[in-house]
Amino acid sequence: MDPDAVIEAGVVELAAQVRAGRATACDAVAVYLDRIARHGAALNAFLAVAADPARVVAEALDRPRRDGAPLGPLAGVPLAIKDNLDVAGLAATAGIGALRGRTPERDAACVARLRQADAVLLGKTNMDEAAFGAANDNPHFGRCHNPHRPDCTPGGSSGGSAAAVAAGLAAAALGSDTLGSVRIPASYCGCVGYKPTRGSVPVGGLMPLCRSLDEVGVLARSVADCAAVFDAIRDPVSRAAGALRPELAGMSVGVVGGLDVEPEIAAATDRTATALAACGCTVSRCALEGIDLARVRRAGLLVTEAEGALVHAQLLADPASGISQALRDGLGYGAAQTRERVAQAWELLRDASRRLDSLFASFALLLLPTTPQTAFPFGSPVPASQAELTVLANAGGFPAISVPAGWSSGALPLGIQLIGARGSDALVLAAGAACERALGAFPPAMLRA
Amino acid sequence: MDPDAVIEAGVVELAAQVRAGRATACDAVAVYLDRIARHGAALNAFLAVAADPARVVAEALDRPRRDGAPLGPLAGVPLAIKDNLDVAGLAATAGIGALRGRTPERDAACVARLRQADAVLLGKTNMDEAAFGAANDNPHFGRCHNPHRPDCTPGGSSGGSAAAVAAGLAAAALGSDTLGSVRIPASYCGCVGYKPTRGSVPVGGLMPLCRSLDEVGVLARSVADCAAVFDAIRDPVSRAAGALRPELAGMSVGVVGGLDVEPEIAAATDRTATALAACGCTVSRCALEGIDLARVRRAGLLVTEAEGALVHAQLLADPASGISQALRDGLGYGAAQTRERVAQAWELLRDASRRLDSLFASFALLLLPTTPQTAFPFGSPVPASQAELTVLANAGGFPAISVPAGWSSGALPLGIQLIGARGSDALVLAAGAACERALGAFPPAMLRA
Repeated sequence: MDPDAVIEAGVVELAAQVRAGRATACDAVAVYLDRIARHGAALNAFLAVAADPARVVAEALDRPRRDGAPLGPLAGVPLAIKDNLDVAGLAATAGIGALRGRTPERDAACVARLRQADAVLLGKTNMDEAAFGAANDNPHFGRCHNPHRPDCTPGGSSGGSAAAVAAGLAAAALGSDTLGSVRIPASYCGCVGYKPTRGSVPVGGLMPLCRSLDEVGVLARSVADCAAVFDAIRDPVSRAAGALRPELAGMSVGVVGGLDVEPEIAAATDRTATALAACGCTVSRCALEGIDLARVRRAGLLVTEAEGALVHAQLLADPASGISQALRDGLGYGAAQTRERVAQAWELLRDASRRLDSLFASFALLLLPTTPQTAFPFGSPVPASQAELTVLANAGGFPAISVPAGWSSGALPLGIQLIGARGSDALVLAAGAACERALGAFPPAMLRA
Repeated sequence: MDPDAVIEAGVVELAAQVRAGRATACDAVAVYLDRIARHGAALNAFLAVAADPARVVAEALDRPRRDGAPLGPLAGVPLAIKDNLDVAGLAATAGIGALRGRTPERDAACVARLRQADAVLLGKTNMDEAAFGAANDNPHFGRCHNPHRPDCTPGGSSGGSAAAVAAGLAAAALGSDTLGSVRIPASYCGCVGYKPTRGSVPVGGLMPLCRSLDEVGVLARSVADCAAVFDAIRDPVSRAAGALRPELAGMSVGVVGGLDVEPEIAAATDRTATALAACGCTVSRCALEGIDLARVRRAGLLVTEAEGALVHAQLLADPASGISQALRDGLGYGAAQTRERVAQAWELLRDASRRLDSLFASFALLLLPTTPQTAFPFGSPVPASQAELTVLANAGGFPAISVPAGWSSGALPLGIQLIGARGSDALVLAAGAACERALGAFPPAMLRA
């Protein structure tokens, strides 16, 4: 396969070619390492590139197997891993300067599953410090740039994973999502981001921020590629419920109205609604009655700060730990909250979750934008509302996907979001794929460079 | 409170007394440490007792709080932790001799939540080596005895937790459940054992055996106590679904027929069915059609051995690691399986899970025995069928509870099991409490000694 074809093949098609002997893992790795060598430094998407280990793994995959066993579902597919997920033998800092030199001995559970599926791990991606934030302007390792527009944020906290995927520096990537940290950068970078039903991907080996909300998610250039990586890392037990192929015709989709978003994003959502109606879905307007999104977002942030203060108690207690003032302020605020105040925040999150449960009695899926705004330039104020549309899925453990939905007039990616009831991962992915077919793909210029 | 009253108060009542200032955490800890001093060695339920740290924590809880903040829901309640769950500063071997001296720096996520709830941690409990097995005849740390009958197994792999709870050496305990490892020892020891919906309790800091099936569970002397501990460790997100108080009247219960169990256990199940009918439940017979329990159990064992071989690859590769021949054989068998063979086992587990999903369309709960047999003497052959009735809940991630249901003619505890649909934790616990009220409690003689 020529290099363009390797990138074009993404995850599913590349693995099929490697399994069929029409492509090699070594060639695939060489193509991606070459692209990292050419574009990686400019984007600063990777904190560490594991070129030699990746080549060794690829060579082993390309060798004829003595037992004749077939290769796995991600055969030879080069993937990137957010730096808060442990990869045995690679530094894992979670974007925290004080954790330089931390090298775990074991893979995170989801990373181990990727290896079992015969994927190849290219390296660790840039992220917000401690996964706290959504701009990926990392004070220790430098900012990661948006592949559509240098000096714009890729979003965060999984910014490096989104930028690497969108720019074709990895076939797909793992991220983590506490309040929206997979879907926000996917939306800003114009790739697909998927946060599964809570509990369906193991979080062992993920550096926690807020254990009660943290989840592992997937970023890829297509919904099918996202689904394939999710399938490799998901709990086998959770697969039972979603085994059937969902039927979109007649499915009820609620388009969430009354949101305060940029007009071009609202228009992209309306286009998506029309596309889903053309697929046979029953599309109607709905409202998030009784849900104050700004309050829900603040409640999510408060429980994150309170739990994060416990997780990072040592860094917080040590004035010389070097954590940024922003992280110190956030965690310090969390540490100062009373048990009652945190309980009130949880009650608000649970109330929102129950209201969404009620909506899922009427609608199979909810359609809304992923973010209220497109990517913004570094240096301009970070909008407080970044996670206001993503936090709901974390509060309720609902599966949610961000799918590219065209360009703004400023040529920045727009993203729409689908949220489903817990356990409806197959449905969310199928509907996401239908949107993608209707809306098209929106690659950054550098994907062809 | 006098010592008997402290033991009698269990979890919920003890915490209420401590919060109300009518009992102190120090007194509660002293009562339990005294019982451990008198009975612990004979039972060998604890691998480590953290007397001094427990006293320090209790003293801090009893001190007036400067900020006037109320104590947490498990205020001053002395708990025991299975040795495969990390407690910061205490040795954590998971029953594996080679891991002597392993002392984690951080609490497991669920243990951290117990501390947040103001519980006191008494120590680490005996278990089967690597949580592989259900007899708690540990080759490195010695066997744990059944408090109802010395020289009988307490069951496993959470045998030490069950024995400690049943004998009144802890108010409640955490265990882990991969194929039945919480419910089997609860049944054998005559205490309550609860395995929640998969994903509702975080597994970070649990030494894995089979990541795809491992779950954290709770053992206590009453269902209400079990529910209180579960409430403290469960994910706040999962609490939204179960917030309502379930109504038992009119609820449909399927009594699983056609099982090969000891006649006294079948009779106890029938008595429980009658009791639930008296509570207003609609009780009818049902069959596990298309489910071959022995095959499901073997499939669960195979995937456990295959994943366990990866987790413990270093111990398996090192001939001098000192792991028992039984563990070496089991993990070696797992390591030798092809990807296809493991995939077939998963397909069988998922098929069983889907068949239970279908039953849950007709029945809110399934009632069946926990184990086909009562506790057996050490030295007699371990019945292959031990986990045959518990594995289903692991295969599907269903919540399941074992509740004491009287005595065998040989004066050994009998246990019944309730299984619910995923997310129906509140219902399973409420129905378990109804069974307990109808059936009574069955304390071992030594609880009063």
